[in-house]
Order: sequence, then C-alpha cells, then structure tokens
Amino acid sequence: MLYSDVADRIEGLIVTGALRAGDRVPSVRTLSRQQHVSISTVIQAYNVLENKRLIEARPQSGYYVCGRLQPTPLEPRMPRTTSAPVRVEGAALVLEIFEAEQKGGVMPFASALPAPELFPTTGFVRAINQAARKLGPAMHTYQHAPGYLPLRRQIARRSLEAGVSVSPDEIIITVGAVEAINLCLRAVARPGDTVAIESPTYFGILQVMESLQLRALEIPSHPRDGLSVDGLKALMSRQRIHAVVAMCNYNNPLGSMMPDDKKKELVDLLARAEVPLIEDDIYGDLPAKGERPLAARSFDTDGNVLWCSSFSKTLSPGARVGYVAPGRYFNEVKSLKFMNTIATPTVMQAAVAQFLEAGSYDRHVRRLRAQFADQVNRMSDAVCRHFPSETRLSRPSGGYVLWVELPRTVDALELHNRAARENIRFAPGPIFSARGGFKNFIRLNCGHPFSPASDKALGVLGRLVKESADA
Amino acid sequence: MLYSDVADRIEGLIVTGALRAGDRVPSVRTLSRQQHVSISTVIQAYNVLENKRLIEARPQSGYYVCGRLQPTPLEPRMPRTTSAPVRVEGAALVLEIFEAEQKGGVMPFASALPAPELFPTTGFVRAINQAARKLGPAMHTYQHAPGYLPLRRQIARRSLEAGVSVSPDEIIITVGAVEAINLCLRAVARPGDTVAIESPTYFGILQVMESLQLRALEIPSHPRDGLSVDGLKALMSRQRIHAVVAMCNYNNPLGSMMPDDKKKELVDLLARAEVPLIEDDIYGDLPAKGERPLAARSFDTDGNVLWCSSFSKTLSPGARVGYVAPGRYFNEVKSLKFMNTIATPTVMQAAVAQFLEAGSYDRHVRRLRAQFADQVNRMSDAVCRHFPSETRLSRPSGGYVLWVELPRTVDALELHNRAARENIRFAPGPIFSARGGFKNFIRLNCGHPFSPASDKALGVLGRLVKESADA
Repeated sequence: MLYSDVADRIEGLIVTGALRAGDRVPSVRTLSRQQHVSISTVIQAYNVLENKRLIEARPQSGYYVCGRLQPTPLEPRMPRTTSAPVRVEGAALVLEIFEAEQKGGVMPFASALPAPELFPTTGFVRAINQAARKLGPAMHTYQHAPGYLPLRRQIARRSLEAGVSVSPDEIIITVGAVEAINLCLRAVARPGDTVAIESPTYFGILQVMESLQLRALEIPSHPRDGLSVDGLKALMSRQRIHAVVAMCNYNNPLGSMMPDDKKKELVDLLARAEVPLIEDDIYGDLPAKGERPLAARSFDTDGNVLWCSSFSKTLSPGARVGYVAPGRYFNEVKSLKFMNTIATPTVMQAAVAQFLEAGSYDRHVRRLRAQFADQVNRMSDAVCRHFPSETRLSRPSGGYVLWVELPRTVDALELHNRAARENIRFAPGPIFSARGGFKNFIRLNCGHPFSPASDKALGVLGRLVKESADA
Repeated sequence: MLYSDVADRIEGLIVTGALRAGDRVPSVRTLSRQQHVSISTVIQAYNVLENKRLIEARPQSGYYVCGRLQPTPLEPRMPRTTSAPVRVEGAALVLEIFEAEQKGGVMPFASALPAPELFPTTGFVRAINQAARKLGPAMHTYQHAPGYLPLRRQIARRSLEAGVSVSPDEIIITVGAVEAINLCLRAVARPGDTVAIESPTYFGILQVMESLQLRALEIPSHPRDGLSVDGLKALMSRQRIHAVVAMCNYNNPLGSMMPDDKKKELVDLLARAEVPLIEDDIYGDLPAKGERPLAARSFDTDGNVLWCSSFSKTLSPGARVGYVAPGRYFNEVKSLKFMNTIATPTVMQAAVAQFLEAGSYDRHVRRLRAQFADQVNRMSDAVCRHFPSETRLSRPSGGYVLWVELPRTVDALELHNRAARENIRFAPGPIFSARGGFKNFIRLNCGHPFSPASDKALGVLGRLVKESADA
C-alpha cells in the first residue's frame, strides 16, 4: 500500500465522520502495524493530511483531527432593496433542472429532498395498512375539505408546539403545502396583484405565483434573521401590497429564522395594514438544535395569518399530505380546495393520522433533526475544504439546505450546465428570485447522508467553481 | 293483517325488483293461504295495486306486474340558445348543498356518488398493501408529472377501448379529473376568457371556472345526443371562444351520449378554429349496455383535444387518481401540475396500477355497469310512479344519474329546501347552469342500490313536487 492510499483511507474516515474534530487519529506506530505498512509510509501519509489541514500534530500527544477544517466562512450577503414588483417567470428552467435530477445518476444536491431511507418505511406501510383496513368501504368516500377529522385532531394537538392554538375545525387538509399555498394565494389575491416575498425565496412559491399571474415584490432577507421587517415597512408605505408569503422558520434556501420579536412585529404590521400573511412553515419541525420555534401564526390575534405546513419534510414527501389553518379566510380556502382537487386522498389522510396516533412520530422527528444537523455540518465542512476561500456560506438554524455565495465572477447558471456534464446537480441562485438575482449563488441540498461520494462530488464542484471564478 | 299491509308487502317486492315487469304475482288463493288472510282481503289489496298501475289482471291467467309501471315519460326539454357569456358564480350554494348531504342521515340523491359498497374494498386494500411493500422507501419520493410509469402504461393500454391511441409519455396523472380539468383550463385560457360548456353541465366544471374567473357560454345540449354542434358553430361565428369543455359520453346530468359522427364534427370544427376541446370522459367506462363508446379524442388528429378521465367513478373516488392526455398542451399541463400539487400521492398511483395489473378491473367494471343500469331503471320507475304525470325524465345511456324536468311551476331551489327538512337531498337544476337556468329541473343520483327506503323517499319527494306544482 502506498502512502497516498493510507492518507485516502484516513481522509475517508474524517470526511464521513467516523473520526470527528478533536478525535485522536491512530499513532504512527499503531497504524503501521494495523495496515502492514512501514513507519515512514505512515509519516508521509500524515504529512499529506497535515498539509490538507485535516489533522494536526500536538506536541507530546500525537495527531488529532482539526477542530474546524477551515476558518468559519462569512455569511452570504443580503440583496439590496428594489421597489418594483415584477411578473414572475422561469418555471420552465426550474422544471428542466429538477427533471434532470429525477432521472437519477446524479448527486442529489438540487431538490430539497431528504434521502427516502431517512423516512420510516416499515412504520408507514403499517399505518397505511391499518388505516385502509379500519376504513373499509369508507376508503372510497371523499374526505372533503376540511378533511379527515382524526387527522385534523392530531394536527391541532401538535400545533401547540408551534405556539399555535387552533381547533380541528380551523384546519383544512391539502395535497401537500404547495396546494395550501396555492389556495391561500387564490383566496387573498387576484391576477395582477402584488405579493411580497422573501429574497431569496423558495422557487416553488414563485412558480405558484407565476401560474396565478401574480407580481412579486422581493423583500431582502438576512441569512440568519430572515425577512427584513423594516424593508417591508418601507415598501408598504410606498405601494399597495396584497399579501406577503414568508417562511419565518428556516427559510428555504437561507435556513434563517426570524427572532420572535421580529415575527410579532411582522404580524402586527400586516394586521394593521390588513395585508394577509401566508406563512409557509414546512421546515418549522426541523430545528438544528433545541425546541421547535414558534410560528408567526402564534402572534396572530385576528385571523390574518394563513398558516401552511405539511408532512413532506418530516414523514413522507410522496404521501402529499399538507394542511393549512387559513384564519379568517377559512371559507374561501375550503371552497377553493373543493374546486382544485375535491379532496385529499382518503387513505393517505387516514394513514398519516394513524402514524401520528401511534406516537412514533415525535421520536422519529427528533432523530431526523439530529441527522439533518449532522449532514448540514459535514456538507459545510466539505464546501469549506473544496471551494475558493472567498466563498460565503449560510449557517442554517434548521432545515437541511445550504445557501452558498460564490465569488462574484461565477455565473451559477453556467456553472450548473458545466456541473451537469459531470453528473452533479444543484439549484442555481437565480431561480430563487423573480428578478433573476443571486447570479453567483447556489443552494445545496444536505438531505442525504454525507458520503465519500458526496465529498468527491463537492471536490469536483469546487474545482469547477474555481475555474469559473478564474475564467 | 289489513289489506293495505298485504298491498304494501307486494308493492315492496315489485319496487325492490324481487318481482319484475311481466312476472306473475301469487294467485289470490295462494296469497290468502300463505299470508293467513281472507280471500276478500287479498282482492282488496290487488285492487289497490291495480289502481296504482303496479299490477294488471290478465283474463284466465291471473295478476301480473305491469310491463312498464307508467307510460314512458317524455324527455326533458333542451334549453334555448343564449349568446352572452356570463361570469360564473354560485359555488357557495353548491358547497352548502353537498356539505349537508355529507353529514349523513339523508337519502343520498344529491352527490353523483355510488354507494361505497359497490367498489372493491378487499381487492383495493390488497393492491395498496402490495404497492406500498413493493415501493419500499421509494414510496416517500415524488412521482412527479407525468407520474408513475406503470400506471401510465396501464392507462395507455386501456385507452384503446375508447379508441384513443396514446403512449404512456402523453399521459399525466392528476389528483382526480377535477385537477385535470383545472390544469387544462389554466393551460388554454386566461382570466376573463370565454369557455363554452354544455347546458346543462356538471356544476364542478362551473366551480373550477368560477375559481379561475372564466366566463361561461352555455351551448344547448340534447338529452340524448348531447352538445348541439350546430348551436356551438352558430355562436362561434359571432364571438371568440377560447376553449370548449364537454362530456361527450354520458354528460352529467343528462346521461346523453354524442353519436360518433357528432363527436367527429365537433373535433373537426374546433381543430379548424384552433379552439381546444377539454373532454371530460369520466363516465365513458359506464355504458348502460354494450361497448364502451369512443372518446371524442379518438377523432383528434392534431393534439387539440385534452382528454381527461379518472378512476373515481369506477374504482375509488377516495383514491383521487385521475389523468389527462393533454395533446399539444402537454408541457403546459405538466408544468401546471407541478405548481398545483407537485405530484399525485405515490402509493395511490402505485395501488391503482397494481389493481389494474392484477386484471380484476374489467370484471369489476362489467358488474358495475349492470348494477348502475338496474339502479337507474328502478329509480326511473319510482319517479314515474310518484311524480306528477307532466314530469319529464332523461333516459341515460350511461352513468348513474337522472335528469328530471318538473312541472314549470316548481322551483327546484325551494323544493330543495322543503325536501331537506324531510331529510331528502337532491341536486337542484340551477347549479348546472351559469345563468341559473333549469329552475324546474333536478338531478337524482342513482349510485346506491334501490331499496324500499329509496322508494319511500321518492314517494315523499313526489308529494312535495305535487304540492309545489299546485301551490
């Protein structure tokens, strides 16, 4: 075995987390014996790893995995305020990007989707089974809006964790949160109306707005604190805004979380102005650490916040079970739900209810939070190791995506096309903006367990970024 | 036992079909012996039944169930042509009517829904189970538009029966046909555009149009031959129409079927004018007798027909699995599907595919057709017996609803409210028109097995109709 093989082997252990920051690596003598290589081969290997800043020698003690593999990178910059709402376009590009990923064979960095293996399969199959059997012929009936009562009961019960106090009668079950946001937008805005959104914002919200012919006004969002309430206030003083859509907890792609006082300020501002707030809270259940944060809805006193969420990020994206508590727009949303899809599939509603009732959901979500936090950390480390030093990186307080600001000279769409040829996909920054902003930003999905293959792909991507930056 | 009890008992046997048209009823002597009543009691009872035209005496032979319980009623009249498109409204009324029915305790004559017991429960539970197990963790992934390939293959294969030749790649899976129609309308029309519809038409189509702010232009439809192509042609020569939505096979509520030459004429007319046809073919699989009719889509040569259907009327409404072959609007519809609900639930797509693959679908649908035809016949008979003689009645060639024209003086909405107080619900005519037409029409659902309770409820309804007519 060559010294480079030995170095690769140890690097693999570090990259995959078998050896973690601060861990002692085997002594030269021990490794020499274990791997049947000479002392000098091990010393050469450790020199390579030291040069890569993966390990460090501590006098009289041996070699240790470096505490932080790179100096902590700066956070991405906030966009500047713009005051003109724009027509939303670009859905075609988004579809193209994600369809390519679906076809497989590429690193799954593009869609914000966890590895399917992280979701409970045996348990959910059992829940589907039990639900179908329990329903019997009633499985064939519609569970019209508001939807299956036992599920609404479970959701109402769990809403308390988000500080939200709703009765089951205030909740409507939808086909995922995307349908919920769709219905909410249609309940509060007409084609041509202006809707304020975070900048950057989840491209799916932009697509829904495009399909409804709404105009988008982008409000700058801070990478840690989220939507700028001051920025919104300033824009509202100058123009009519018909609604605001915001992910107050763990914005996708920022991973930001609005502090509670900001949430309250936002809710109060919009209540006074009688502008409805559509809160997309799908990542709220996924803090990187600590308790689930409060929803903005928890500060709502007059039904002005339409609170949307789903089980797609925590239990099963494929189940397509979401929900909304539309506040004072309940009747409009209920009626639109009927017109959009009549009802959410009965067995899926009952299966999620069954899974929640069985009580294993909380344990599962706790495990998932730790898993995602770990994956985000490792992806961050790898980006730090492989990308140019000017790279800026979000520090998400929840969820499982990273928002990366590349050197100014990099064009994310061009980079996307070059990376695609190497079977690496990611979500380019401009799709997170109605104005085509964030030209040198990318979003990386950290929903899959970090592996040597992830590290290798990020190595290739880092090289492409450097080439683009230098071109 | 009184003579009226004896009469009721025999009437029950006739109404439920234990005794059918042309059957000999027991002789006076036999019945007297069997029921331990006097000869004169039986004679009195048979007189009652003769007066009700339920049985007739044949000289030298005895009593027989009447061949047709009433003279065949006239068909409902066609509406007159109107040339002004109107804004669609009235969703609130529809919701109110159907929500009341959902709460239970009423005769299920309002929604066009079969009894859940008529659908395969054991078989479908098995299919769900097998599908979920086979998918494993893949159940958590999205089956993005166009959707789960094995299901699209099954649909493509079965489309041949409707004369439609599509590849799996031309089909998009939706959350029921309502989502399909939604997406199609959004693909081909903008808010404010005029869409031509049949008159009468399924209120769900009107509601979708209302939610999309489309204007409706009603084209008169014949109770047996469906949409008047001449009427449409005349209107098209005078004004711009952006799309046509039609149920060419078994229009709901008429049960009409366009003859093949009319379908071809319609498709050719619209192709020449470059006006897309959205064909809602959900009842096509349910002919009262004979083969499945051709879809209008089968005459389409240039992708101008967006063919929508679902498994809600034949396999399981609660599964919410529909589909569309959107012709040359494929990309638009696919993109809109993503923006509307991202994907149809994975397990439900796979379960329907599994059920179709298992091969029991055809046998089930054959049974269902016979069952529905029988239920429609019995409901028709009962309406003839109980309603005033001026009542006109559709003769559906498929599906399972009846369209009833009441005497002109009856207001169907008023009748609806009065009937609701007696726990009888039906769908009043005006909800099938954007202009609020069909004021003295009602639609009756025949999706449930006919029972003495159905007969009794129709008896009460007939009395209310008479009272309304005379008032």
